[in-house]
Amino acid sequence: MTRRMVVVGGDAAGMSAAARARRLLGPDELEVLAFERGPRTSYAACGLPYHVQGLVADPEDLVARTPEQFAAAGITALVHHEVVAIDTSARIVDVHDLRTGSTLTESWDELVVATGATALRPDLPGIDTDGVQHLRTIDDAVALDRRIEQGATRAVVVGAGYVGVEVAEALLARGLSVTVVDAAERPLAATLDPPMAALVDERMRSKGVDLRLSCAVEGFEGAAGALRAVATSAGTVEADVAVLGLGVRPATHLAIDAGIPAGDTGGLVVDDRMHTPVDGVWAAGDCVESRHRVTGRSVVVALGTHANKQGRVVGSNLGGGDARFPGVLGTAVTKFCELEIGRTGLGAEEARELWDVEVGSVTSRTRARYYPGTQPAEVQVVYRRDDGVLLGAQVVGGPGTAKRIDAFAVAIWNGMAVEDLAMADLSYAPPFSPVWDPVVRAAAVVGGARLG
Amino acid sequence: MTRRMVVVGGDAAGMSAAARARRLLGPDELEVLAFERGPRTSYAACGLPYHVQGLVADPEDLVARTPEQFAAAGITALVHHEVVAIDTSARIVDVHDLRTGSTLTESWDELVVATGATALRPDLPGIDTDGVQHLRTIDDAVALDRRIEQGATRAVVVGAGYVGVEVAEALLARGLSVTVVDAAERPLAATLDPPMAALVDERMRSKGVDLRLSCAVEGFEGAAGALRAVATSAGTVEADVAVLGLGVRPATHLAIDAGIPAGDTGGLVVDDRMHTPVDGVWAAGDCVESRHRVTGRSVVVALGTHANKQGRVVGSNLGGGDARFPGVLGTAVTKFCELEIGRTGLGAEEARELWDVEVGSVTSRTRARYYPGTQPAEVQVVYRRDDGVLLGAQVVGGPGTAKRIDAFAVAIWNGMAVEDLAMADLSYAPPFSPVWDPVVRAAAVVGGARLG
Repeated sequence: MTRRMVVVGGDAAGMSAAARARRLLGPDELEVLAFERGPRTSYAACGLPYHVQGLVADPEDLVARTPEQFAAAGITALVHHEVVAIDTSARIVDVHDLRTGSTLTESWDELVVATGATALRPDLPGIDTDGVQHLRTIDDAVALDRRIEQGATRAVVVGAGYVGVEVAEALLARGLSVTVVDAAERPLAATLDPPMAALVDERMRSKGVDLRLSCAVEGFEGAAGALRAVATSAGTVEADVAVLGLGVRPATHLAIDAGIPAGDTGGLVVDDRMHTPVDGVWAAGDCVESRHRVTGRSVVVALGTHANKQGRVVGSNLGGGDARFPGVLGTAVTKFCELEIGRTGLGAEEARELWDVEVGSVTSRTRARYYPGTQPAEVQVVYRRDDGVLLGAQVVGGPGTAKRIDAFAVAIWNGMAVEDLAMADLSYAPPFSPVWDPVVRAAAVVGGARLG
Repeated sequence: MTRRMVVVGGDAAGMSAAARARRLLGPDELEVLAFERGPRTSYAACGLPYHVQGLVADPEDLVARTPEQFAAAGITALVHHEVVAIDTSARIVDVHDLRTGSTLTESWDELVVATGATALRPDLPGIDTDGVQHLRTIDDAVALDRRIEQGATRAVVVGAGYVGVEVAEALLARGLSVTVVDAAERPLAATLDPPMAALVDERMRSKGVDLRLSCAVEGFEGAAGALRAVATSAGTVEADVAVLGLGVRPATHLAIDAGIPAGDTGGLVVDDRMHTPVDGVWAAGDCVESRHRVTGRSVVVALGTHANKQGRVVGSNLGGGDARFPGVLGTAVTKFCELEIGRTGLGAEEARELWDVEVGSVTSRTRARYYPGTQPAEVQVVYRRDDGVLLGAQVVGGPGTAKRIDAFAVAIWNGMAVEDLAMADLSYAPPFSPVWDPVVRAAAVVGGARLG
């Protein structure tokens, strides 16, 4: 008998699950049906700032696969269709067709909850003023681009996290004056330790960003229905456009209403096969919580990498395999203009809460000292004092710095000790690193006491 | 009583040992004396092609530390001083001062043999013709540069290994016509498997290199004392200059004559503390053999990274510590024009000789598909069939490809299985990778059967 897989949410996690299951099972074994309330399937939200920046001319290029392409692969993906209720006993979902207003009821044998995340939207005066927006969807990016085309020259970016930093770069490149406001004392405060964040702070200011830290946004002021200024605890900033980049939280109301439980993190609870505690219900992507491999704790990390992997795991298991999602390290990279930023594992403070740790950093270089284009690369390493096990690393530096975090990520993934990484056989050639690569050098210097 | 450390060979390994020991022990505990027969200490041989290319204007920039700088750090480093005999019973060395012709006899308590490697020089007719040269020293690079300045326009590079490929790039950049001759069927034959080498072959030809493979050099023809042509098994190639890049072998005669043993590889035998079987005698760098961590076999790998680490290990141990050199993976990177090349661990054939293996490759990208500057990156993975343990990886692709080999190197170092790497938390942002990073994607695709 043909079973039916229903996917709630047609982005990375859901459509990865759909595609993987489809590859494993034929149409006589499994029908695959996905509902997406938005207008598009599987688009790269991470690419939105680069459309705004003008680096990706056609925003539709950010769409990995269209409903038509899914259809050709034997997957029915319906956009403008919002699942509004899940019944886990009757195994049905209610779906609103947002264009016709009609409601469908569809049955399922296997349900995949991939509802993603919701952008935080502070309850501030004037938040609904025209010109105040998120940058979460292709439509958001197109709207921001249009505002710039129509003459916006002054922007306020609310939040100095990844999105805030990337949007600031994009808007500077478009010629706007850019103010970035954050309640924290440093940019990227949630993920970078103070000495590393200081390098980002410095670069943002040197590129002309008016960076206002320890500063609260108090409201948005309009005139004639359009944004005119942003009120902050450090004064009013005139602005034609304000971009909210305050982070996201798992979008779980639909699931929770159906009795699919969330954990203390706010993310849906899943086992390592990405199955929820409810029979036949799987979940993946930004709406779930994951196990942090260093701390063993549950965390919510909204990243496309995890969404894709988790979706693949769901699809494999639903297709008869036995795949496991092994957890996360909190690895992330970004850039601001030419400054590359990466981090993995625990920051110094997070680590100190749990263990007796050593923290240190070195200033290395992206290439041999004498090779053209060589630039500084600052590398911080955190390890546990009693056994040397690496707990975290952060890198900030010139082109070629960011992806070095992957060597640390693999080291931490394997529970490697700092002294072992210091002697590891990493690559060297003058166009790519000093003879002591920054990763190895940081391990050797910071972990020097353990090296014998 | 003050002990005396004598270092034979003043390059990376020897001077790293000297510097490390000096840092650990005061001058009243240890006297540090190094002899170098050449005119310089601690220069970056890997940087020589980039001087020829014109990217490093002053070749003296390739010198990491001069004898004067060592002297200021409490290390006596004598250049133009060649150690010609070692007596391990009397603990003395005989040293020729190459400028005065006089011979010194110096005593030692701890001896460090860091005699490096000797470039292979085939016994061919005309090998001594003016215009036929190596590229091993700064003087070699200066000589090659001078030949180009004086009008050389046609070059033959003998050997398509790392040096050959790098020299070919440099000479093309200087406007010479370049013929590369190698006896093997592909470039970089000793380190890259055929499908990966094919990409290098293609790029070399497309950039204008006359690449002659399966081709033997038979002699060098001069006219009026200067090179005129190179005779090969595929005909005569007119040339003003010929650069020999046939590889190196450990320079061990001095040590072997003193009863310090070499292994079957030709490299000196050391334990993991870099001590030879002879009491008080240490060895490090291109002249020693190392343990390959994947095969457990002894290998000779002449690379600055190992020389530096091994020297540090010697210095630590000699200074009272207990440091270990944990072996090598054969990690290496280079580039030809914009094509980046990396490899670590075993190639497919090497691996097949030892185990039942799976080999596969994927074509990924250096950046998100839609991000400007994205280029193909080909990634090959080799793993053991019974347990999935990664044995080797090779990468060839556009800018940003080479250093990805480090993530594989750390994975292989830790005995990681392909399916674990496929789910590892490597970084992603559109300027740096697709959402499935090439490393992760290669592991997931090639190791797909193990992923569940």
